Amino acid sequence: MQADAIDASAPRAAPATASDLLPPEELERRLRAIGEERYHIHHPFHHLLHGGKLSKAQVQAWALNRYYYQASIPAKDAAVLGRLPTPELRREWRRRIVDHDGDGVHPGGIERWLKLTDGLGLDRDYVVSLRGLLPATRFAVDAYVNFVKTRSVLEAVASSLTEMFSPAIISQRVSGMLRNYDFVSEETLAYFTPRLTQAPQDVEFALGYVKREAHTREQQEQVMEALRFKCDLLWAQLDALHFAYVAPGLPPPGAWRP
Amino acid sequence: MQADAIDASAPRAAPATASDLLPPEELERRLRAIGEERYHIHHPFHHLLHGGKLSKAQVQAWALNRYYYQASIPAKDAAVLGRLPTPELRREWRRRIVDHDGDGVHPGGIERWLKLTDGLGLDRDYVVSLRGLLPATRFAVDAYVNFVKTRSVLEAVASSLTEMFSPAIISQRVSGMLRNYDFVSEETLAYFTPRLTQAPQDVEFALGYVKREAHTREQQEQVMEALRFKCDLLWAQLDALHFAYVAPGLPPPGAWRP
Repeated sequence: MQADAIDASAPRAAPATASDLLPPEELERRLRAIGEERYHIHHPFHHLLHGGKLSKAQVQAWALNRYYYQASIPAKDAAVLGRLPTPELRREWRRRIVDHDGDGVHPGGIERWLKLTDGLGLDRDYVVSLRGLLPATRFAVDAYVNFVKTRSVLEAVASSLTEMFSPAIISQRVSGMLRNYDFVSEETLAYFTPRLTQAPQDVEFALGYVKREAHTREQQEQVMEALRFKCDLLWAQLDALHFAYVAPGLPPPGAWRP
Repeated sequence: MQADAIDASAPRAAPATASDLLPPEELERRLRAIGEERYHIHHPFHHLLHGGKLSKAQVQAWALNRYYYQASIPAKDAAVLGRLPTPELRREWRRRIVDHDGDGVHPGGIERWLKLTDGLGLDRDYVVSLRGLLPATRFAVDAYVNFVKTRSVLEAVASSLTEMFSPAIISQRVSGMLRNYDFVSEETLAYFTPRLTQAPQDVEFALGYVKREAHTREQQEQVMEALRFKCDLLWAQLDALHFAYVAPGLPPPGAWRP
């Protein structure tokens, strides 16, 4: 029992009571229910952000910290890519890295995120240096990269499934921010528009993969746990922003201060 | 620059302006100054805890989450142990694992921490299951274990140097908690007493090691950055507890609720 206690990979959810394999559509229904419960569209910081209730400094804190998540996505995807067994699967996954890093002509997601931090008046060198990052942002994002390196490929693919829920949060965010903040424009929010078509394409592949490749109930439970883990790390990033910059508003030593 | 941006191992501190090696006693002085700035003895949650300002449920949340840190210490120390090059160094480090896991006769730190969670009325199986843990606790603690696995041995040893500051926080915590809470006793706080002698013994070795083995200014900067990293992850754990259970008091989905 002590051995289990210190095993960070022990699943937190209670073990499945039914040992029967779920029909694929039931697995998908349960994955969507996890989003209903845990996706950060329900986090108070998101409500404040799209509802126009944040100051410019608080929006800056969000963009500054979220940059580290964006910038780490190719490291995460490269780890998955390197573990996929066939050219077909790797080509599919490689597209994600192109989406984030660009092709040298069209800017990728990271460059578009820096347009947002530019537009918010943050110094680009400072953003890229990561010097002002909340430690909790770093721990959560690094946990994601480590997860896809150390878990099964099935779990690594499943952890990307938060994209099932991202079109809804992006729509709320973009329309709310444009309406409510005079310091953002369609141009500074250009990160989000391509994501509205990229994310569903990614999801179609990843959701099909987990529905097809989870051959046992135990694997299906691992898929669900991977999605919970991913929701938790997105949520934890907003917790840390809220604590540091909204309420009670106590940035930790060394973190960015408005 | 993009490559640096996604490198989680990039140091956050500005590079040293002086390239001169610091005298060992100056290195020690700077390490102590890092504790003055960043050790969690200055965190508002610690003040509430030892000042008697927390409810029993809030103290339970602290003990439940801190259990994961305690339980992970031997995994961290085993990773360091396995990387040390000589029997002398390994024997020194092995003592830390004995301190936490016990010798089969005398209880170790983990068992003593479970006496605390027992005394606070938490179900032991539930504590050990980690089911109610805050995700941020998990991310911060796992970041520590990963740090000692992937950084230099010098940095791994340096990250243990928060023990320089622990006798002060333990004294405040124990005397304050005994005075202010009728639900704790000397017996339930038995975890802390041996730490008052173990920690200085550990520090004597680790501080001597980094003063002796940091041969360049760059290595000295790495030592300081490792201590900052460690302070940050202890601080982040209290941030998450404060956010979830004190103010605003919003436990994330799936976490323990009083």
